[in-house]
Amino acid sequence: MTMFASAIIANKRDSQALSREEIEFMVNGFVSEAVPDYQMSAWAMAVLCRGMNQQEIADLTECMLNSGIRLQRASERPRVDKHSTGGLGDKTSLILAPLLACYDLDVPMLSGRGLGITGGTLDKLEALDGYRCDLSAAEIDQQLISIGCVITGTTPEITPADRKLYSLRDVTGTVPSIALITASIMSKKLAESLDALVLDVKFGSGAFMRTREEADKLAKSLVDAGKRMDVPTEAILSDMNQPLGRMVGNACEVNESLDILRGNGPSDTRELTLQLCASLLVTTNKFTCNEDALASLANTLDTGAALRRFQQMVEHQSGKFVDHLPLADESILESPVTGQLAQLDGQRIGQAVIALGGGRSKLSDRVDHQVGLEMLVRLGETVSRGQPLIRIFARNSATRAAAEQLLQNAIGIEC
Amino acid sequence: MTMFASAIIANKRDSQALSREEIEFMVNGFVSEAVPDYQMSAWAMAVLCRGMNQQEIADLTECMLNSGIRLQRASERPRVDKHSTGGLGDKTSLILAPLLACYDLDVPMLSGRGLGITGGTLDKLEALDGYRCDLSAAEIDQQLISIGCVITGTTPEITPADRKLYSLRDVTGTVPSIALITASIMSKKLAESLDALVLDVKFGSGAFMRTREEADKLAKSLVDAGKRMDVPTEAILSDMNQPLGRMVGNACEVNESLDILRGNGPSDTRELTLQLCASLLVTTNKFTCNEDALASLANTLDTGAALRRFQQMVEHQSGKFVDHLPLADESILESPVTGQLAQLDGQRIGQAVIALGGGRSKLSDRVDHQVGLEMLVRLGETVSRGQPLIRIFARNSATRAAAEQLLQNAIGIEC
Repeated sequence: MTMFASAIIANKRDSQALSREEIEFMVNGFVSEAVPDYQMSAWAMAVLCRGMNQQEIADLTECMLNSGIRLQRASERPRVDKHSTGGLGDKTSLILAPLLACYDLDVPMLSGRGLGITGGTLDKLEALDGYRCDLSAAEIDQQLISIGCVITGTTPEITPADRKLYSLRDVTGTVPSIALITASIMSKKLAESLDALVLDVKFGSGAFMRTREEADKLAKSLVDAGKRMDVPTEAILSDMNQPLGRMVGNACEVNESLDILRGNGPSDTRELTLQLCASLLVTTNKFTCNEDALASLANTLDTGAALRRFQQMVEHQSGKFVDHLPLADESILESPVTGQLAQLDGQRIGQAVIALGGGRSKLSDRVDHQVGLEMLVRLGETVSRGQPLIRIFARNSATRAAAEQLLQNAIGIEC
Repeated sequence: MTMFASAIIANKRDSQALSREEIEFMVNGFVSEAVPDYQMSAWAMAVLCRGMNQQEIADLTECMLNSGIRLQRASERPRVDKHSTGGLGDKTSLILAPLLACYDLDVPMLSGRGLGITGGTLDKLEALDGYRCDLSAAEIDQQLISIGCVITGTTPEITPADRKLYSLRDVTGTVPSIALITASIMSKKLAESLDALVLDVKFGSGAFMRTREEADKLAKSLVDAGKRMDVPTEAILSDMNQPLGRMVGNACEVNESLDILRGNGPSDTRELTLQLCASLLVTTNKFTCNEDALASLANTLDTGAALRRFQQMVEHQSGKFVDHLPLADESILESPVTGQLAQLDGQRIGQAVIALGGGRSKLSDRVDHQVGLEMLVRLGETVSRGQPLIRIFARNSATRAAAEQLLQNAIGIEC
């Protein structure tokens, strides 16, 4: 049967469920340029407005996955990974990958760079001098065989449809669609040829999904797509109404990750990381129950085994491992009043990091690894006038002033 | 304030009403190519899915109107026009324009060609040898001064935004939007600098709007846009569950129009035309009530005054006026059973005319003026087995067979 993109667009516009063949026609046509951008963007908007059922989402995920190659299995060990929907101070990947590798699992983590208020795992690791994020598929295999974990950038051969579609969605108002987000995330992750996947779906002022309800919807969609593609998938919802841990930035988040890998560091980050790891250990039958997995994971962290694995990973990827990275000059933002810390606006905190040079407004921006923030007070705590609230690591007085302004507006204190 | 197309698309996606400035930014940007096709098509889909309020529709209409020139007023006479949303056998324009010109009104009718099942007024008139549809603005003015009516094609200087947007909508599933249809129709008609406009909004199996409810919604939107732009506008809803009159085609519809201009012809077409004319005569204060206008119009037709004006128009536009145009070879489609004619599928009847060569699947197709159909029975009538149902004017046996097949499936007879 001859298919026409305009008819497929019209079907979705009229709220019809699309067939596997129709979805394939759009995705493959878009990649081959038989379907021009102007049809794909109208289709994406129709998908956003009318939604997709779970079968359509799974079909879209698989078509996008099939647009590129998949990583090969490097060893007989189970392959696992985690994906987070992004937030402030989320450095769990840096701890999770080497920690899971200590359990005879392969963690082939293909990660991304920061954009907007969300930091990027690759940017953080590049704070370590020389760290390479451009490993080839062969190098990924070799490293997995040697040490069981890798955190590197995705390769151009993986899900080219997603890369092309994402660029288009970014400029056509078609980003916030559960269906399109699910297919984008899951196609990239499933290209890693996983045996288990855990998802950290964040909600709150610093997350893409502002409410728990929205995050729950996205989580269900992601888990369903994973299961339909025969990859055991679980999701954990986590709070992003304030940064995870104390540090937000690049080098400063590496430092905090090293603290946690030494058995120290902020408990929220440690606990979330252990929960995500425990999910994968139970799914891959390394443990029969969550409690046992958690106890073992805590012990592995505290013995320094995961820290050693992290050091091996960094050195394998040509990075210079250090105990502590230097940061830019610090200053303190004090509380202007006495009261209770009632609100932290994640969007403004993220903007402050961008203003410092630690994040990107557009993908071509360069990142300054040494700048960032340290949150000294958590939501709900009582603060007195003049008490330090945030430590700012800034490159110069202009960016410091811009960040201070944003942070002052980000903080809500009830007197 | 700096505006971004992606932000305007997102506002509409989130069901916000757009400001005049935002709409202007999109329309002007699209024409100047600052807003690329892929953003415009996503925006059009968001408009289709989320809708526009009446103020937004009026703003969009005016922005599209302002993308080009308007016709100048040629005389002191009131300027009026009619627009129909299109259907089968709708030849009212051919009668209405010369008839209204008999009342000291100027009728500067810019018309279009047929596409899909809807016939085009220009195609019909071109059945008259030599008829020119490419008059310049100066020629239009001169003809209005001389005889008060003109039916010609639109010029490239009129609403270029509509022309560009319509091409994009056609291939991106964004045609059936009340807001976009309203702006498209009304911007073109208002470019004629009218004092009054009447709209013939059709519903039924042969119309764009299948139900009376949809047609009513579109009519209200069109009338409101006209009024907001200070052009008195009325709408008449008319039934398109069967062709208007007996003839469907080009030359055969000219012949039927000539019949009506002689005071004869099918009553449905005569009555609808007189109703549309009466609306404009009352709006322009030529008559105080509809009944008086209708009586006068019937008389004007019957005296042959409108026919003489039609002949002048044809000759002014270099056409050869004849009493009757020759048609292609005819054959009869008979009723296969005895029963009541319960249904006529307008889509299939229109397809049959296209199959005969009398319509277009795409705008570049050539039209055969001499082919067409004559409907010999109307909905609700009783027919006996073997009774002639449709006379087919065909160029050859292959197209005749294709049309017969479509027509057999178009006819529903209840036994």
